[in-house]
Amino acid sequence: MLQSELFTKTIKEVPKEEVSINSQLLIKGGFIFKVMAGVYAYLPLGLRVLNKIKEIIRQEMEAIGGQEILMPALTPKNWWIKTGRYNNFKALFKFKGLGDKEYVLGATHEEVITPLVKNFVQSYRDLPVYVFQIQDKFRNEPRAKSGLLRGREFSMKDLYSFHTSKEDLDRYYEKVKKAYFKIFRRLKLSAFTYLTYASGGVFSEYSHEFQTIASTGEDTIYLCEKCKIGLNQELAEKEGKKCPQCGSKNLVKKQAIEVGNIFKLGTKFSQAFNFTYVDKTGRNKPVFMGCYGIGPSRIMGAVVEVYHDKDGIIWPEEIAPFQIHLINLAKDEKRARKIYQSLQERNFEVLYDQRKESGGVKLKDADLLGIPWRLVISEKTGNKIEIKKRNKKEVKLVNFRELFNYIKIKNV
Amino acid sequence: MLQSELFTKTIKEVPKEEVSINSQLLIKGGFIFKVMAGVYAYLPLGLRVLNKIKEIIRQEMEAIGGQEILMPALTPKNWWIKTGRYNNFKALFKFKGLGDKEYVLGATHEEVITPLVKNFVQSYRDLPVYVFQIQDKFRNEPRAKSGLLRGREFSMKDLYSFHTSKEDLDRYYEKVKKAYFKIFRRLKLSAFTYLTYASGGVFSEYSHEFQTIASTGEDTIYLCEKCKIGLNQELAEKEGKKCPQCGSKNLVKKQAIEVGNIFKLGTKFSQAFNFTYVDKTGRNKPVFMGCYGIGPSRIMGAVVEVYHDKDGIIWPEEIAPFQIHLINLAKDEKRARKIYQSLQERNFEVLYDQRKESGGVKLKDADLLGIPWRLVISEKTGNKIEIKKRNKKEVKLVNFRELFNYIKIKNV
Repeated sequence: MLQSELFTKTIKEVPKEEVSINSQLLIKGGFIFKVMAGVYAYLPLGLRVLNKIKEIIRQEMEAIGGQEILMPALTPKNWWIKTGRYNNFKALFKFKGLGDKEYVLGATHEEVITPLVKNFVQSYRDLPVYVFQIQDKFRNEPRAKSGLLRGREFSMKDLYSFHTSKEDLDRYYEKVKKAYFKIFRRLKLSAFTYLTYASGGVFSEYSHEFQTIASTGEDTIYLCEKCKIGLNQELAEKEGKKCPQCGSKNLVKKQAIEVGNIFKLGTKFSQAFNFTYVDKTGRNKPVFMGCYGIGPSRIMGAVVEVYHDKDGIIWPEEIAPFQIHLINLAKDEKRARKIYQSLQERNFEVLYDQRKESGGVKLKDADLLGIPWRLVISEKTGNKIEIKKRNKKEVKLVNFRELFNYIKIKNV
Repeated sequence: MLQSELFTKTIKEVPKEEVSINSQLLIKGGFIFKVMAGVYAYLPLGLRVLNKIKEIIRQEMEAIGGQEILMPALTPKNWWIKTGRYNNFKALFKFKGLGDKEYVLGATHEEVITPLVKNFVQSYRDLPVYVFQIQDKFRNEPRAKSGLLRGREFSMKDLYSFHTSKEDLDRYYEKVKKAYFKIFRRLKLSAFTYLTYASGGVFSEYSHEFQTIASTGEDTIYLCEKCKIGLNQELAEKEGKKCPQCGSKNLVKKQAIEVGNIFKLGTKFSQAFNFTYVDKTGRNKPVFMGCYGIGPSRIMGAVVEVYHDKDGIIWPEEIAPFQIHLINLAKDEKRARKIYQSLQERNFEVLYDQRKESGGVKLKDADLLGIPWRLVISEKTGNKIEIKKRNKKEVKLVNFRELFNYIKIKNV
């Protein structure tokens, strides 16, 4: 894409109440636009990143049998009354419409997915069911000062599983855990992301969070560096600071961002909706449920918190808005244009900066946007191309063919 | 996909208040699930259709330079106050959150896109801007009895254009009009869909709707069959029943579904937000705007209203959930399984019914689901395959290779 045609340009002023690194850099770079506290619009660059994150998550959900659906944001009050969460779930947005109809904005979707799946399941033959959606959630948060890390409206992948037995739920839960590790590997977050034990509620001893270490994270966790396992604050207070795996009390306190969680719901919601199935012997049995969340928009914020320097963002290649940032500094644009076309023909995603701006402005913008590979064409580069990786200082002069020793062709 | 593994099966009971054809068939077929009046969830089959509709629209918006963004559903009250629509737009959902913060659920997005684009445009060099989103809208509708035709929550593609002059807006408006015709052609709705004149508001004499003729449509239009142009009810009452093109008074009254609309906003919203640009001579000038809507979920409903018979839905190939419905009626599944694999290897989208159900049930389900090509393997077909198009009565026996004289390979 031609940078001169890209909607959005880098901007200098960030709303002064935007104190988080992720929202500062993303707003400056023109990735997102602040609509109100905790509510952002995704601009072309930002939406490209968000969609790539969603697509990685989607692929891994489908790989474990998840079928995609899409539930609404508007949900009926009576289903929340049934589960007792209408008054207990503090962050619900509630309101009335015409005819005094009462709505709740979906903050999570157990209250919808349970009657929905019940509608299609009668017998053990209809189970298990694994369904997920990637959709926006709403939470009436008291504070929303961490940019994409804590939104009042935010994107969420929520997977729900339905089983004939606790054992079948346990088995699938471990499968989802593995899928989550794979997702964080693909997002290049696994070096900083720890499986973290949390309270399990009535049904299960533990649930698990995936916590990404970041000094700006809102959560506090206690880390066993040997086992690479964490303990969240609530559990640490309840059960003491002890590794759930090796028993070590030598834990390190860290700030972290909760980027995912998995939870065995057991029969809590199926009982609320009287959701049973008929087993092989003709008896009615309760359905067992699990729920599994990952927030794509929060991940986008977390990636920026982890991958940045004083000059801007450093996107991992997998989710960068473009793979290559081609910058022309030569007076004659001909050579750069030809290289741009050749790269596009080879299916690279290229942002091509042919703007009439100074070299200084262009290189500064490139650092802020954080596209992984920077290629510069100038009078100085002769018939070669200057190549630099955003996260390295080293600059090399190479010819066109040699480029592909560095940049791998990706099937987009 | 194996039909036995598909989440959702056809169901017999439809909520009794669901009187529209589209919601009855879509609910029976397991495409959608009713959450509350005017609010539906999209199940795997339904989401496949909805996503294909969205993708066609997306491609045509990108083809006319549209850049995709994503705005939130939560919007601040003060922006609606600025444009005077906080009290005048009847169908707004309004509510308070913590700290008495006042929200409006986005029923349309002029109030967000105008300050958003203003943030990035200072000079004539920054214009024009064409941005669109595909996102869910919310309207506090008094009645919602037409299934996907009138939702309280519904999906919308909204494109907004920003220009230096009325002339530039006029030029782009015609370009969008052509793109819309192309979209309706690809959706196989163009034979029933008419450009329909509507009031233009303060700025422009006319705006235009795209109306799909259907006896169950909520709108009344007056059609000039010679010019293939319609007049909406409001304009007909205001200016008389006369074709705006040829002047003929010989118009036919029809029921129709409004599947799209395009509107020249002029400077109404840019003035409300004091959005100006600096022209070549250094003077401040107002920005001209257009807005262009198409509702993917309403289109899904409209397609069902237009394409069905007493047995079920008849999806056009372009947006069908699968291209091929392969049904095995033979006792030995081996041959059907082999054909299923061969079709998948050839990149066809196949729903394969290998369920242990009677032939009657399977064929009835196939008619209800409405997948364009039905292939049956049975003892009777020998080493041939029975092929039938959903919208034709004719049944043929063909061998595997001959299939491809009928079904074209599609790049999904």
